[in-house]
Amino acid sequence: MAKDLVILAYSGGLDTSCILKWLIKKSYDVVCFMADVGQNEDFKKAKEKALGIGAKDVIVEDLRNEFVSNYMLPAVQMGLIYESRYYLGTSLARPCISVGLVNAAKKLGAKYISHGATGKGNDQVRFELSVYSLWPEGKIIAPWRLPEFFERFQGRNDLMEYAKQENIPVSATPKEPWSTDENIMHISYESGVLEDPSAAPPNGIFKITRNLKDAEDYPSIIDINFEKGLPVSVRIPSGHEKSLLLTNPLAIVETLNKLGGQHGVGRIDIVENRFLGLKSRGLYETPAGTILHAVHLDLEVFTLDKEVLRVKKYLQEKMADFVYNGFWFSPEANYTRKCLQLSQDMVNGTVTVQIYKGNVTILSRKSPTSLYNQDLVSMNIAGGFSPEDSTGFININALRLKEYSRLAQQEN
Amino acid sequence: MAKDLVILAYSGGLDTSCILKWLIKKSYDVVCFMADVGQNEDFKKAKEKALGIGAKDVIVEDLRNEFVSNYMLPAVQMGLIYESRYYLGTSLARPCISVGLVNAAKKLGAKYISHGATGKGNDQVRFELSVYSLWPEGKIIAPWRLPEFFERFQGRNDLMEYAKQENIPVSATPKEPWSTDENIMHISYESGVLEDPSAAPPNGIFKITRNLKDAEDYPSIIDINFEKGLPVSVRIPSGHEKSLLLTNPLAIVETLNKLGGQHGVGRIDIVENRFLGLKSRGLYETPAGTILHAVHLDLEVFTLDKEVLRVKKYLQEKMADFVYNGFWFSPEANYTRKCLQLSQDMVNGTVTVQIYKGNVTILSRKSPTSLYNQDLVSMNIAGGFSPEDSTGFININALRLKEYSRLAQQEN
Amino acid sequence: MAKDLVILAYSGGLDTSCILKWLIKKSYDVVCFMADVGQNEDFKKAKEKALGIGAKDVIVEDLRNEFVSNYMLPAVQMGLIYESRYYLGTSLARPCISVGLVNAAKKLGAKYISHGATGKGNDQVRFELSVYSLWPEGKIIAPWRLPEFFERFQGRNDLMEYAKQENIPVSATPKEPWSTDENIMHISYESGVLEDPSAAPPNGIFKITRNLKDAEDYPSIIDINFEKGLPVSVRIPSGHEKSLLLTNPLAIVETLNKLGGQHGVGRIDIVENRFLGLKSRGLYETPAGTILHAVHLDLEVFTLDKEVLRVKKYLQEKMADFVYNGFWFSPEANYTRKCLQLSQDMVNGTVTVQIYKGNVTILSRKSPTSLYNQDLVSMNIAGGFSPEDSTGFININALRLKEYSRLAQQEN
Amino acid sequence: MAKDLVILAYSGGLDTSCILKWLIKKSYDVVCFMADVGQNEDFKKAKEKALGIGAKDVIVEDLRNEFVSNYMLPAVQMGLIYESRYYLGTSLARPCISVGLVNAAKKLGAKYISHGATGKGNDQVRFELSVYSLWPEGKIIAPWRLPEFFERFQGRNDLMEYAKQENIPVSATPKEPWSTDENIMHISYESGVLEDPSAAPPNGIFKITRNLKDAEDYPSIIDINFEKGLPVSVRIPSGHEKSLLLTNPLAIVETLNKLGGQHGVGRIDIVENRFLGLKSRGLYETPAGTILHAVHLDLEVFTLDKEVLRVKKYLQEKMADFVYNGFWFSPEANYTRKCLQLSQDMVNGTVTVQIYKGNVTILSRKSPTSLYNQDLVSMNIAGGFSPEDSTGFININALRLKEYSRLAQQEN
Repeated sequence: MAKDLVILAYSGGLDTSCILKWLIKKSYDVVCFMADVGQNEDFKKAKEKALGIGAKDVIVEDLRNEFVSNYMLPAVQMGLIYESRYYLGTSLARPCISVGLVNAAKKLGAKYISHGATGKGNDQVRFELSVYSLWPEGKIIAPWRLPEFFERFQGRNDLMEYAKQENIPVSATPKEPWSTDENIMHISYESGVLEDPSAAPPNGIFKITRNLKDAEDYPSIIDINFEKGLPVSVRIPSGHEKSLLLTNPLAIVETLNKLGGQHGVGRIDIVENRFLGLKSRGLYETPAGTILHAVHLDLEVFTLDKEVLRVKKYLQEKMADFVYNGFWFSPEANYTRKCLQLSQDMVNGTVTVQIYKGNVTILSRKSPTSLYNQDLVSMNIAGGFSPEDSTGFININALRLKEYSRLAQQEN
Repeated sequence: MAKDLVILAYSGGLDTSCILKWLIKKSYDVVCFMADVGQNEDFKKAKEKALGIGAKDVIVEDLRNEFVSNYMLPAVQMGLIYESRYYLGTSLARPCISVGLVNAAKKLGAKYISHGATGKGNDQVRFELSVYSLWPEGKIIAPWRLPEFFERFQGRNDLMEYAKQENIPVSATPKEPWSTDENIMHISYESGVLEDPSAAPPNGIFKITRNLKDAEDYPSIIDINFEKGLPVSVRIPSGHEKSLLLTNPLAIVETLNKLGGQHGVGRIDIVENRFLGLKSRGLYETPAGTILHAVHLDLEVFTLDKEVLRVKKYLQEKMADFVYNGFWFSPEANYTRKCLQLSQDMVNGTVTVQIYKGNVTILSRKSPTSLYNQDLVSMNIAGGFSPEDSTGFININALRLKEYSRLAQQEN
Repeated sequence: MAKDLVILAYSGGLDTSCILKWLIKKSYDVVCFMADVGQNEDFKKAKEKALGIGAKDVIVEDLRNEFVSNYMLPAVQMGLIYESRYYLGTSLARPCISVGLVNAAKKLGAKYISHGATGKGNDQVRFELSVYSLWPEGKIIAPWRLPEFFERFQGRNDLMEYAKQENIPVSATPKEPWSTDENIMHISYESGVLEDPSAAPPNGIFKITRNLKDAEDYPSIIDINFEKGLPVSVRIPSGHEKSLLLTNPLAIVETLNKLGGQHGVGRIDIVENRFLGLKSRGLYETPAGTILHAVHLDLEVFTLDKEVLRVKKYLQEKMADFVYNGFWFSPEANYTRKCLQLSQDMVNGTVTVQIYKGNVTILSRKSPTSLYNQDLVSMNIAGGFSPEDSTGFININALRLKEYSRLAQQEN
Repeated sequence: MAKDLVILAYSGGLDTSCILKWLIKKSYDVVCFMADVGQNEDFKKAKEKALGIGAKDVIVEDLRNEFVSNYMLPAVQMGLIYESRYYLGTSLARPCISVGLVNAAKKLGAKYISHGATGKGNDQVRFELSVYSLWPEGKIIAPWRLPEFFERFQGRNDLMEYAKQENIPVSATPKEPWSTDENIMHISYESGVLEDPSAAPPNGIFKITRNLKDAEDYPSIIDINFEKGLPVSVRIPSGHEKSLLLTNPLAIVETLNKLGGQHGVGRIDIVENRFLGLKSRGLYETPAGTILHAVHLDLEVFTLDKEVLRVKKYLQEKMADFVYNGFWFSPEANYTRKCLQLSQDMVNGTVTVQIYKGNVTILSRKSPTSLYNQDLVSMNIAGGFSPEDSTGFININALRLKEYSRLAQQEN
């Protein structure tokens, strides 16, 4: 009888290697799926490792363009920031990877998708809600939530022993005392020694951004051009950098990551509320994302009508929660995304920004579709404005306040 | 017959000096009111000037403690940020000053309050709505909205000429080509050459924060302790600075301003939406405010329940608009303020923060009332958590998504 | 020299007839514009009256289809209810009429639009904001806000006298002691004796709905079919009424008005908050609108995803305020309308409703696009549901609550 | 060894009687807890039945006053309506009953609380989240979610057979083909034949409200007096009813239920979204609640400031979801409740209301704390209002719209 096929989201690390072996020993056929979302990874080596362990096949899919164009940049366009600080780098990658997993499962006729996400985290939710949305008939195997598995493997040592016993190659480098998730948008660090929110992060933990004291000692200037809220080109005038004009989304992000990293831009250290109701502490470095969000916000307030901005802001807060919680493919996210994108029709123009010593400083903004009217606002010219109108405006706004005061005086 | 008494919000500058004279010539008695909200001003000299012009009296009131304790720090506590970036330094000072104006008017039996705010700006609204709320019977004279006044004085030159003609002393220093509002929370810069949003600010415009390249080349570490969301003490361990423990609110703000300024913290350059519907461009430097907001946010997310945080965030966005628009004393602001303060009961604890090269970096947070539970979130220990529960949680959350997918598939 | 042309929103009543004369005597050419939005009016007679007074021309435009299709039914689709009770009948008519006014003004080369709305009301705002949005160069003459006019005409008697003096025909019927606005969606009653909110409305005030005691003593059953949230057909099975199938929007509304009126459906008596900050008391009768809103709501909750419904509800509350306040053509209303209409893609189906003695009772709803799943919800069959999942769902939701309880216990 | 003690939420019906037996046979000591929240129930008989089955004890607690004063009337005060229609009668009773359960458990040293709520419903969530909030150490036994139980009892027949086998007395009356939840606020009906949303409810299903055709043929008039948003007295002038003045909360609700029921007030038939993501169909009859909500809303809009009303409305929508979903004792509900109650300080006064043929018609409202100002709003007197101010108000509001129009014209 044919074995049931499992598509395993494989990372090459100890956990998913042990899961791979464990699934095979549970009599599944397992095809490993590795998404290249820009992480620093030797895919060839990982593939060989998986095949060595017994994977039926290993699929490596380059999703970097997909991730940048359909997840990261739309998140900038929508202004998605979770709990005022986190740019959602991991939250955005999970639905992107899930599309790859589900496509593979459907193509190969798999019955299950499996992953190594743990039971307290957000990623299990993001993967599974995405998978179920895309493939409602699909089934999930989440070993870290199966007592059979998690009771056997109670810590890293149990996994190490299993690896040894099953001839699974283990990296010689000792594991860092925290865990990491990396993609082209960001690197996150959490758990282990970081679980103490009162302990400053260990030195040297960050990988793509320099410490402020080591950041370049000159500022870099960048022009970023947006159409409908999406960055469409980046121009770096010659200076310390070679003059560049980039229009490819992936190249834009890679370049801003590099430059931002040199200038120490985009680190945060926060406590956040997980969807499950736990508070957790995480560090993130998001150089390109930080620059793009700051610039987009500037252009947005410059161009959008004041009241449209407020409606949009409500939607953006909702959407950030939807995405963080794993609901990227939900009806509410589909709907809210359309609304948010509708709001961006006028968000066109160019912002010049300086990055220096961790700071992103707006120098200039220009737009063909801005409601900014320099004549109208000028202190020196009337610009069609009648100052007497303000008197009426204030008096009418004061009506309600005066009534309230009079009533309050009566009350006392 | 006795003349009607006007209380004039007097700054000592050209505009309000001309208004003072103009009011006197319109047969009013005028008492000048100067609020010391921390601006850099020679009050004695200004007083003499006003008396010289003909003011019946000049009241100088030190409102610095009042402003810090009842406006600025509550704004930090409430998390008030206008359009995602502006900390509302001027918006908060206006109601504070209005209390002083109204108290003087009531005490002296004045019939009018007058000010030099212009007809396109926010400040006229903030002053007048505050005054009408506190004193519904009061009347306002806003010369910049009276055709008789604004048609006569069409620009600075007309004022200069009037000053000359009326023997009003004029500062020898040429006026800067922009206008400034200063208080202990911030300095704002707008209009004049700043009206072009595509022109970077002129060098040397900022007064209390250093340029990043001139910022100190060492980091400073500060411990800030909060009770119910209000900063109650600041400790600066010895290092580059002398060891300090501050508990006086005014001293806290002054010290953080000084330190933040040395490190280049707290500058922004933004376009904002005025209440009247105009877009305007402004620069702000808010060193202490920037540090305090960053630290308060960190502690708030660390301590507050996730869902309380979301309700509070909605209220905070509303409140920021109320304050910006001049509705500090309105029924809605009174109500929302109470609600926001209620949310802060658990926001207690200490955050350690590093300020360096314009950056405010959280190093550590501790709280006796945080919902953070290190055992519960730990990847290494169960902490009372059953991973199987997550399966149910995810499956139930997926129910709705699966139904939606099935319906969507039918549709296609 | 040619006179400036004014387009006057003319009603045929005393106010606008006097305004017409007054404008002519101020040396304007005046063309009267009458919009037929379904009010009970003798347009021919009104036209003759205006010409008799001296109008250069009178335009009567039938805007009933336009009003129903582009204002009233979209308002049902969007679910617009002001302050939980008012269906916005007048608020929706004003922008519709304004389009007619502006089109006439542009076509005839007018410089001004004039209207008889008073200075304390909402309609002046709705007319003028609509006109300025559609025709930013246009100018408004609002006599009731010009001291020259309102000081001369301080009450109805002054108008009567002016009419007499200027040979303006005056209706023989004495004016009712309240004012009325009528269109195909509703009739409103306010001011005069209604200004006392503690006095019950006078008997016989309502025109299109019967008193409950006089309502038909049999129920009527109606099937209403929606596509994308818009009512597209109404079927009335034979019974007390003749069997009918209606698909023309105007006919649908007229028929539901008649039937609803017979059954006493759709009266309210409320105090509302005007845009200017005043509270006012109004009565409204809205038979078809009341039926359509009730039915649309039922279908909407039946079909829409739970979370989409919540995002939509926020937008709908905002939109109701925009419309009430006169911002139908504003950027925020244009944007929010698009978002709300996007939400209605799945709101398809048929609701059967009984109307009887003022009550609108839903009897049945069916939809090809509902997310309602009878198998899934059934208490008798599993329908793919695993009860154990609920345990996990509840336990995870309880996590946060338990932490909060434990902390609260520590605190005490 | 002593057996573990379970407190069972007991109803006297077949389900909880079988659960009682099943728990005893699982070697638990079981104390039954019956809350009297106003349902029509023979508690004495139920108690005997439970003791006969083997309950160690039966506690019957009269929670009617508690339910009315601390749950139902505060819900009126807060304006809680779920998905625009449902007054939350069951949702409010669950936390009230949970307090009784937890108090009993703590007092008797129980380890478990058990209930008969099913796995697809809301009530399991409401009970358990309430219990966990009040008693984080507590444990729940929910048999309908235990495979051992729900696989054995797959339908009513299995329970009947078990009852027979275990000598559990079974009611002679055949069970109605739907399920019911009753308390002093409402009766709900769902499941069974009601699961088809296109089928009108069976005749005779409703218990406390008359059919419209059988409703009294005279109107009843009631005066309801509120303090801080809570109904504190009800006066029924003599007429068809005996003249009455009620101030006891329970008596108020009972009387309004009786009167409302005679007039056919308060039925709805809706589809709603359960917390678990299912849509379900339910009927509710809520006579007193319907009257009180209508009257409270009228007084609220009459008294509250316009903008406070809007902030409050947002909170009220959130709170309705919290309560429906079972989060009555959560941090967010505790917080939001305090905020909502704060909003009600000015909601004082008396509303006169007519109930007749299913309709609740406001006749009059009076308040010592209303912001309604009859002079100010009057069309006949100025009341301190300057019509010219409206011109300025409108012109300033139009500024933004004109800019938008000009830009839109450029674009085209």
